[in-house]
Amino acid sequence: MARYKLTVEFDGSSYFGWQRQDGQASIQQALEEAVIAFQQQSSLVYGAGRTDAGVHALGMVAHVDLWRELPGVNVAKALNAHLRPHPIAVLSAEPVPDDFHARFSCVQRSYVYRIVNRLAPAALDQDRVWTVHQPLDVAAMQQAARHLPGKHDFSTFRASSCQSDSPLKTLDSLDVISMSSAAGQQIEIHCAARSFLHHQVRNMVGSLAEVGIGRWSISDFLEAFAARDRTKGGPTAPAEGLYFQAARY
Amino acid sequence: MARYKLTVEFDGSSYFGWQRQDGQASIQQALEEAVIAFQQQSSLVYGAGRTDAGVHALGMVAHVDLWRELPGVNVAKALNAHLRPHPIAVLSAEPVPDDFHARFSCVQRSYVYRIVNRLAPAALDQDRVWTVHQPLDVAAMQQAARHLPGKHDFSTFRASSCQSDSPLKTLDSLDVISMSSAAGQQIEIHCAARSFLHHQVRNMVGSLAEVGIGRWSISDFLEAFAARDRTKGGPTAPAEGLYFQAARY
Repeated sequence: MARYKLTVEFDGSSYFGWQRQDGQASIQQALEEAVIAFQQQSSLVYGAGRTDAGVHALGMVAHVDLWRELPGVNVAKALNAHLRPHPIAVLSAEPVPDDFHARFSCVQRSYVYRIVNRLAPAALDQDRVWTVHQPLDVAAMQQAARHLPGKHDFSTFRASSCQSDSPLKTLDSLDVISMSSAAGQQIEIHCAARSFLHHQVRNMVGSLAEVGIGRWSISDFLEAFAARDRTKGGPTAPAEGLYFQAARY
Repeated sequence: MARYKLTVEFDGSSYFGWQRQDGQASIQQALEEAVIAFQQQSSLVYGAGRTDAGVHALGMVAHVDLWRELPGVNVAKALNAHLRPHPIAVLSAEPVPDDFHARFSCVQRSYVYRIVNRLAPAALDQDRVWTVHQPLDVAAMQQAARHLPGKHDFSTFRASSCQSDSPLKTLDSLDVISMSSAAGQQIEIHCAARSFLHHQVRNMVGSLAEVGIGRWSISDFLEAFAARDRTKGGPTAPAEGLYFQAARY
């Protein structure tokens, strides 16, 4: 047996998320089926994070134990051949020690959330961005965002379904970046932490958007955050704007 | 009657191109059907250029005569509502004088061609880029590309189906830009001209790629260009990497 670390890009729009679920298409299942097609034996694929339905990945990390030792580039090539026509691509496969675990060895996960801020719906990026039609005040969003990094009780941004032991998390960074083009304003929210609560990124983005559209002041935002109460938070931003960006080990 | 200039973004992957064709889905037809749904009367939609099947647009320009005078923002909003769920969005609609013609008044068209250069297939950008698996030498492509701008006989890059009177065209600019990210090297080829021959951009890109993968030297490229003969040119780059970017008036 040889363990491989896989870096995976996927378009999550037509999947029920990363994790295998009965009767639903998942990224994990598509990868495990490619593994079976490749080596004629099944092996579980473990991911660094479980993404929700509709969430994408630029660089999800996973590991899998294969029965044959092969150069990583051959593993990636074979899996990609068997993944066709899924919008899932193995960007790289590298041999790793047996104690490497995509989920438990991970020391930092990063996400990017993409917003298109314009009146027209997204055409080229349909299902790949959150389109906000009201003008967003990026400076106000950036001002609110400065209060999020650090160790805090993130209950305000925690889904009721969250299975984490504690609402205390350390957010390493969160940056709101704005780019303008002929196609309208595009906003990216980059964040990183060892781990996140369920829906934490989407709930933080939804609350920052409340500030951006002017429904909340900065102090409304801070009050909601300090309340440690999900019912005081903003709405959950839609899944289609969220990308699992990278995992560090 | 009031004439409107429309700027349109579309994902061309599931269309047989811009132009209306019997029994095939086209962008023009989708827009004309939205116009009918909006004003209960038909009006032709004229585009700045006819894109091939699978080609996209960041900012195609078109014009249409409507029976009612309305603020442009209302026209765009109504057309977008009726275009759903097509991946076609009217970015803006502006009233223009009656002598404005999207095709005949246009003084410059620009295109961008996107290449992803990596071993893995495109997942998030499936049908939106040309994935070249062999490593591309961007510096060599840039060196070859420097010979293209100006007034030349572009027969080497002209499709046999081209209906233009002459193979002489003036290429205003052509730039090869390279960006690197964790997802691999991405190359964009930007070009602009008053008008292009049929398949000219895709044929220029296909020949530049021959240089990039090292199958052709710069002098092979120059020889092919000087031959004024399509059979001496490189292959036609696939439609999915091409975007109509903008039209100037």
